[in-house]
Amino acid sequence: MALLVVGSVAFDSIRTPHGQAEEVLGGTATYSSVTASWFAPVRLVAVVGEDFGEKHFRVFRSRSIDTKGLEQVPGRTFRWRGEYVGSMNEARTLETQLNVFEQFTPKLPPSYLDSEFVFLGNIDPVLQLHVRQQLPKARLAALDSMNYWIQGTPEELKQTLAAVDVLVVNEEEARMLAGHHNLKKAAQSIRKMGPRIVVIKRGEYGVMLFTEHSVFCVPAYPLDEVHDPTGAGDTFAGGFMGHLARTGDLSDANLRRAVIYGSVMGSFAVEEFGLGRLLHLTPEEIESRYREFKSLTHFDV
Amino acid sequence: MALLVVGSVAFDSIRTPHGQAEEVLGGTATYSSVTASWFAPVRLVAVVGEDFGEKHFRVFRSRSIDTKGLEQVPGRTFRWRGEYVGSMNEARTLETQLNVFEQFTPKLPPSYLDSEFVFLGNIDPVLQLHVRQQLPKARLAALDSMNYWIQGTPEELKQTLAAVDVLVVNEEEARMLAGHHNLKKAAQSIRKMGPRIVVIKRGEYGVMLFTEHSVFCVPAYPLDEVHDPTGAGDTFAGGFMGHLARTGDLSDANLRRAVIYGSVMGSFAVEEFGLGRLLHLTPEEIESRYREFKSLTHFDV
Repeated sequence: MALLVVGSVAFDSIRTPHGQAEEVLGGTATYSSVTASWFAPVRLVAVVGEDFGEKHFRVFRSRSIDTKGLEQVPGRTFRWRGEYVGSMNEARTLETQLNVFEQFTPKLPPSYLDSEFVFLGNIDPVLQLHVRQQLPKARLAALDSMNYWIQGTPEELKQTLAAVDVLVVNEEEARMLAGHHNLKKAAQSIRKMGPRIVVIKRGEYGVMLFTEHSVFCVPAYPLDEVHDPTGAGDTFAGGFMGHLARTGDLSDANLRRAVIYGSVMGSFAVEEFGLGRLLHLTPEEIESRYREFKSLTHFDV
Repeated sequence: MALLVVGSVAFDSIRTPHGQAEEVLGGTATYSSVTASWFAPVRLVAVVGEDFGEKHFRVFRSRSIDTKGLEQVPGRTFRWRGEYVGSMNEARTLETQLNVFEQFTPKLPPSYLDSEFVFLGNIDPVLQLHVRQQLPKARLAALDSMNYWIQGTPEELKQTLAAVDVLVVNEEEARMLAGHHNLKKAAQSIRKMGPRIVVIKRGEYGVMLFTEHSVFCVPAYPLDEVHDPTGAGDTFAGGFMGHLARTGDLSDANLRRAVIYGSVMGSFAVEEFGLGRLLHLTPEEIESRYREFKSLTHFDV
């Protein structure tokens, strides 16, 4: 089944202790759609400016991503400049130019309206809800959000949360949203707000999955070197939702597999700058790292 | 096989957001020996003062711990006062009275000298080495240490590291000792210093095990509430070493099981103040939580 992805497409300028990149293709929808394309057909909804050239469109087409919903409008594409220092746990934003993204109103081509799987990347919750409401056949809608919306537009976010099945957030965001430091309690609170599935991303510490039936924890893949953490969270979401769209199976066992595929893809994402590694993978590499997650976490009963 | 444990025995006064306790039995050797006693015979080496009463000795005897090496000398027992605030990730020490612990020189009763499993709790590395050298039959000697020794007596610590098989430290200590932020690299460096097995404790994020053959990660057990984190690290070490002493099996598969037993015991330790939970367990509760770790981490390949 196809996965609809809505979010930002941007040009990122990134500096890390391992190097730098200028105006490379990035943004939440870019990372999640390119990643999900390894698992399922992907339909992209985003906006870019006049400076978005043929070579950029070609990146999405090289992954067979449907770009009918990638709107091009007058003006410049969203730009973000950031750096990672020290332990690289958090990006320091040096500059944000919203440009055409400031007036973004997601427009869904008619051919997208039967989408059964939806990833609502981190944008204004009002827009996320607007997209969700146009997709009556959605079997699974997942939402990403951030502190900016949790603190800035809590009421709007609550309405959107009530309309989705999955929330994917990082640890601090989960705590902020729920008002509990304890993540088990935080997830319980969030599940009462709407999403029956809560996925908490903990960066180098891995991911937790909370469902009605169980709690699942997986560590992050121990890498020798993290070159660029940009997009790792959206890459996780792309792998998670991509696997679910590919299989159509929403059982707890398959949600766990989806968490592993998300973690596998996140571990690839940070190995190179920008999209580098995510564009040059093989299905065998993905399966091989999936099995490495098994050997990383397995013990006998 | 018996496990020899050396370290501190103390009276702890603890305050956490969930309550407080005054002068309760604590210390590294107390937590690790009481925990290990659920798995194997334990031989304790520590020092206490004249204020260490019959009721305190009775705690060790209630767990059939051999106290021939628990020396009682003139003076007062080691006292520690600390509190945990907010997320309770770190203890704030309010007062330390070393008392008789200041002049502690571990003395091994003749009946201890055939010990095959040894846990050298966090004390001066010179004393740890002194104990290690008296145990020619040791098949597995594990060492705990801390930033105080890593920074204060690095040369002495290096000599001791060269004489042990396992290092058990927390994340920041591993980074400090190795001079690498990346834990995989840090563990590689530490393995070159002597210990062929490196266990890194990450608090609420779980534990990593590094051996010659593999890396193993396990998350912490997600608890609804942590009442008192005191002793959780020593409890982990007690469960880890206790299981290895019980089985005598040093294979990677069994080291992984030992990490789970350590994590199981650590999760019990923090449920109540002080030793509370660790003294009132059943083997069935331990096995049941071991299986819960399996359901927490299992996914299909």
